[in-house]
Amino acid sequence: MPKNKSHADAPASALSAPRAARPTAPLRDLLRYTPGTSPAGLDPAATPGYPGKGKRDAAKLTDQLAPALSEWQERLYAAAKGKASQRSVLVVLQGMDTSGKGGVARHVMGMVDPQGLRLVAFKQPTKEELSHHFLWRIRRGLPGPGLIGVFDRSHYEDVLVGRVDELVPQATWEKRYAEINRFEAEVAAAGTTIIKCYLHISRDEQRDRLLARLDDPAKYWKYSPGDVDVRLKWDAYATAYQAALDLCSTDVAPWYVIPANRKWYRNWAVATLLLEHLEALDPQWPPATFDVAEQVTRVLNS
Amino acid sequence: MPKNKSHADAPASALSAPRAARPTAPLRDLLRYTPGTSPAGLDPAATPGYPGKGKRDAAKLTDQLAPALSEWQERLYAAAKGKASQRSVLVVLQGMDTSGKGGVARHVMGMVDPQGLRLVAFKQPTKEELSHHFLWRIRRGLPGPGLIGVFDRSHYEDVLVGRVDELVPQATWEKRYAEINRFEAEVAAAGTTIIKCYLHISRDEQRDRLLARLDDPAKYWKYSPGDVDVRLKWDAYATAYQAALDLCSTDVAPWYVIPANRKWYRNWAVATLLLEHLEALDPQWPPATFDVAEQVTRVLNS
Repeated sequence: MPKNKSHADAPASALSAPRAARPTAPLRDLLRYTPGTSPAGLDPAATPGYPGKGKRDAAKLTDQLAPALSEWQERLYAAAKGKASQRSVLVVLQGMDTSGKGGVARHVMGMVDPQGLRLVAFKQPTKEELSHHFLWRIRRGLPGPGLIGVFDRSHYEDVLVGRVDELVPQATWEKRYAEINRFEAEVAAAGTTIIKCYLHISRDEQRDRLLARLDDPAKYWKYSPGDVDVRLKWDAYATAYQAALDLCSTDVAPWYVIPANRKWYRNWAVATLLLEHLEALDPQWPPATFDVAEQVTRVLNS
Repeated sequence: MPKNKSHADAPASALSAPRAARPTAPLRDLLRYTPGTSPAGLDPAATPGYPGKGKRDAAKLTDQLAPALSEWQERLYAAAKGKASQRSVLVVLQGMDTSGKGGVARHVMGMVDPQGLRLVAFKQPTKEELSHHFLWRIRRGLPGPGLIGVFDRSHYEDVLVGRVDELVPQATWEKRYAEINRFEAEVAAAGTTIIKCYLHISRDEQRDRLLARLDDPAKYWKYSPGDVDVRLKWDAYATAYQAALDLCSTDVAPWYVIPANRKWYRNWAVATLLLEHLEALDPQWPPATFDVAEQVTRVLNS
């Protein structure tokens, strides 16, 4: 298993991933979305910053990030448990059907201790959820101190499907961009590092992935006829995504555009982005809240 | 990563773990607790059914179970999603402090897709929880259809600490064994396979693990002075565990005693037990709920 545990006497252990697996330049810079540049103009098959030889070494390089990810995650968790910090991380995954939100949850988030994860998949809102403000259910899904939260879809659905299908009047969804910015600023100020990932695939790639699901009885369950209905509105969704990225790219919660036609790049890139943010957060093992020598004596006498 | 995806055209793929990693006899038989035999009489350093050479090949053998575990978990999830089944699995982890409940959650449950897991750690009950029947919070923590639930501590705390520290009158905790059996029978009848694991360590092993936590600043956060207070009641807890195992070993929810002095055996054994139960459950990919050829045409025309 790629899980690692650190020991104080081996401090250099897992914390830095091998250089060979690290990006040629920080993905925080390479993948950060610049408002006004249009995600549709970015190549979904590109591999910015990838240090390897393509698909053939991607699984190995991604695996090499696991010990560092795992140790940072444990430190983040420990710091909160030890009352040394209340920080948390929130990874927001958005993208068209088949873009790989579930794949990232499985392959990237599967690299850290499940005890330190809070994964929330936002489906079509329930009646109860609809009776509240659109951010109500989102707040309830936020990660607690020390946790890495993962949103598979999010509040952005309320300016995506909500806008494309006119689920609410235009005046309502237009207001939401500013509401989202205020909400994210508040979440960030409360100690949560927000990493918003737009998984960017091409229309042709989506077609191929839908056909692949229809070609394999082990994947039928992932297919829904409704996927084609949404696909037919591709351009309207592209416009809605562009608006979300343009209007909700803030310094405390920027968007990252992850080229996602290549699954191996997508997984490496999201793992790397998460690692870069954890490194910047730099959570520390919390100090003892007790007298260590005294406790050693107590244990020995027990 | 040890995660695997199956394809219908490679059906033998991951579903059976390599023979070398499988137990010499089913752990469902070898580790099943026989009421009246006293867990304290079982060797916590034993390695029943282990097929390898001890610690040195344990990580490798445990890793080899991962693809099969991962595929069975995906099938369980898919079957529920495709409305073909409402089954779920619940792994209950109990044991003295340091016995490895968190280690199993990290190392064994970390082998499957986190999207298919529901991990619940039961801490000291809150005021709200205390205002309800002791099974109230447990019901709320049960896994939904298709999920593998993991309880790190459970309703058994209410006949362990509840009994040892006399948190409730004897007449109250005495009733609870029958209440637990009725509850578990009901949960099993609703489609949940229950796997109760008692992680069995020796008193000396616990001392060593507590001292190890005090010897490493990266582990201070795992130590609490209260652990020694509980340790001082070792014999009372042994009696309470024996009662829980003797009175709550039923055919629908038997107890398994996992010798847990050796962490490598403990992880392999719980992974193997989970695998054996998933195999017995034998979840299938759900059939398509749509006309496949028709959908292929729709995708091609979209």
